[in-house]
Amino acid sequence: MFRTEDDLWQQLTKSWPITPGNVIVGAGDDCAVLRGSTEDHHILFKTDIVVEDVHFTSAAPPRLVGRKALARAISDIAAMGGRPGAALITLGLPPHVSASRLRALYQGIDNTARQYGVSLAGGETTRSPRLFLNVALLGETRGHTPVLRSTAQPDDLIWVTGRLGATQKRKHLTFEPRLPEGEFLAAQGFATSMMDISDGLGKDLPRLARASQLGCNLDMRKIPRARGATLRAAMSDGEDFELLFTTRPEEADPLRSRWHFPCLLTCIGKMSSKRTGRRPWKPPEDWIDGYDHLKQP
Amino acid sequence: MFRTEDDLWQQLTKSWPITPGNVIVGAGDDCAVLRGSTEDHHILFKTDIVVEDVHFTSAAPPRLVGRKALARAISDIAAMGGRPGAALITLGLPPHVSASRLRALYQGIDNTARQYGVSLAGGETTRSPRLFLNVALLGETRGHTPVLRSTAQPDDLIWVTGRLGATQKRKHLTFEPRLPEGEFLAAQGFATSMMDISDGLGKDLPRLARASQLGCNLDMRKIPRARGATLRAAMSDGEDFELLFTTRPEEADPLRSRWHFPCLLTCIGKMSSKRTGRRPWKPPEDWIDGYDHLKQP
Repeated sequence: MFRTEDDLWQQLTKSWPITPGNVIVGAGDDCAVLRGSTEDHHILFKTDIVVEDVHFTSAAPPRLVGRKALARAISDIAAMGGRPGAALITLGLPPHVSASRLRALYQGIDNTARQYGVSLAGGETTRSPRLFLNVALLGETRGHTPVLRSTAQPDDLIWVTGRLGATQKRKHLTFEPRLPEGEFLAAQGFATSMMDISDGLGKDLPRLARASQLGCNLDMRKIPRARGATLRAAMSDGEDFELLFTTRPEEADPLRSRWHFPCLLTCIGKMSSKRTGRRPWKPPEDWIDGYDHLKQP
Repeated sequence: MFRTEDDLWQQLTKSWPITPGNVIVGAGDDCAVLRGSTEDHHILFKTDIVVEDVHFTSAAPPRLVGRKALARAISDIAAMGGRPGAALITLGLPPHVSASRLRALYQGIDNTARQYGVSLAGGETTRSPRLFLNVALLGETRGHTPVLRSTAQPDDLIWVTGRLGATQKRKHLTFEPRLPEGEFLAAQGFATSMMDISDGLGKDLPRLARASQLGCNLDMRKIPRARGATLRAAMSDGEDFELLFTTRPEEADPLRSRWHFPCLLTCIGKMSSKRTGRRPWKPPEDWIDGYDHLKQP
């Protein structure tokens, strides 16, 4: 009936009530966007969950699990060019969790909050058969509007930060949300659309294209791979948490010259007016490390 | 090591970073309170979860489970005198959930959102061994400050709305959050402190007293019981979701004369300057339906 969670979610939520004038962007983008106190103030609202044996194993160091739970939500704020604010944490506790494991978990949340300027404003605990952490996070943009997935234009260039493909065992626990990079791209007006890569470029780029009602052409040779990662891994591995964004073609040189962050910046393709289908990217039968089209099959 | 979830939560969260000037009230009240756009604008931020076999059984009608998930969070906004705004829903999905059950669940959320003016701004789904619904909800107060648990004064009168004790099997699924009542009590300046009763009066009143660093005396004969409920049930049954609040003694008559809601309003006791201990209320050995003191044991 439902092919994917995306389908299910879209079907169920498409008729949900949104008070006009309050919620500007609802389900379907990295964060919800709410009207702020002034014309150039917007509130970002995000919820994100990590569940044991789904998003982390019981062997993962609890400090890093706490870190990951918060950093994932921060990455979504980054992907709209915002700054994080207050967070509420819901903790699902199985009966057997030790106090020391809990302390390490909270230490990870605490350290990550301090690092990225998040205020931990409370939350709650509940019994649960499996450990989970749900983070509700507020953020904001001031002076510029949040950058959406749905606003890429034909011929826009496609860019990614960093290197893709999970070759380090712990990358999904230790990634750095691209917060200053995202805010720079939004505040300077470079990004025409943006999202973070959470399910792999091969799934997330079609989502951006679909949201913008466009297609896209990727130059596979240019995709920046993590050391030792195959192209397949760079396309398919989830949880890169790098930024995927588009710019007008004429902004390529200004962007490159003003990019002052240590992380890599790579142009990997171009948006096209031909719409991309719903299907995520899969390696073609005659797979070569070359040029490929993400287009309607 | 930790006697209760309250203890655990307090221990773990007491050192959490709060950016001064942003979060006014953090962990420990019904909602977090954040600074709004102006002096008399405050943002309320709440997260609340319901888990199958903890907060509802698999036999509960899914429409009512969806209703309950959202109504619980709305009740916390009501308990601070606020109005709800945007919500994000996180849905934990076990493998065996049918599409029709999901639809009913969402229908319950949808209907409740429309009824109480909540904007459903998105959320996400995740796999989980047990069904759960986490609601992150924003609210606000304009023109008056949110009413806290911690601001009762000695000699304040203690009041509750409605009738306590769960005699209807489905009350925990069908309760009405006291939204207009809470806003009235806050906006008219009646309530000096307020919270909602989620764990039973016998547990929640000591929390309010403790937060206010006061004690309290209850007139047990006055506690409004649901039809057929024993006094013990009225004190101990959780999930009443009625408002528990205090007023200055001289406000009793003005409050009664201006109370225009269909739900019952009852004065049940008085705050005292003698601090209440941490222990929740338990029926005394020589239990009679009479006057009792919730005081330091």
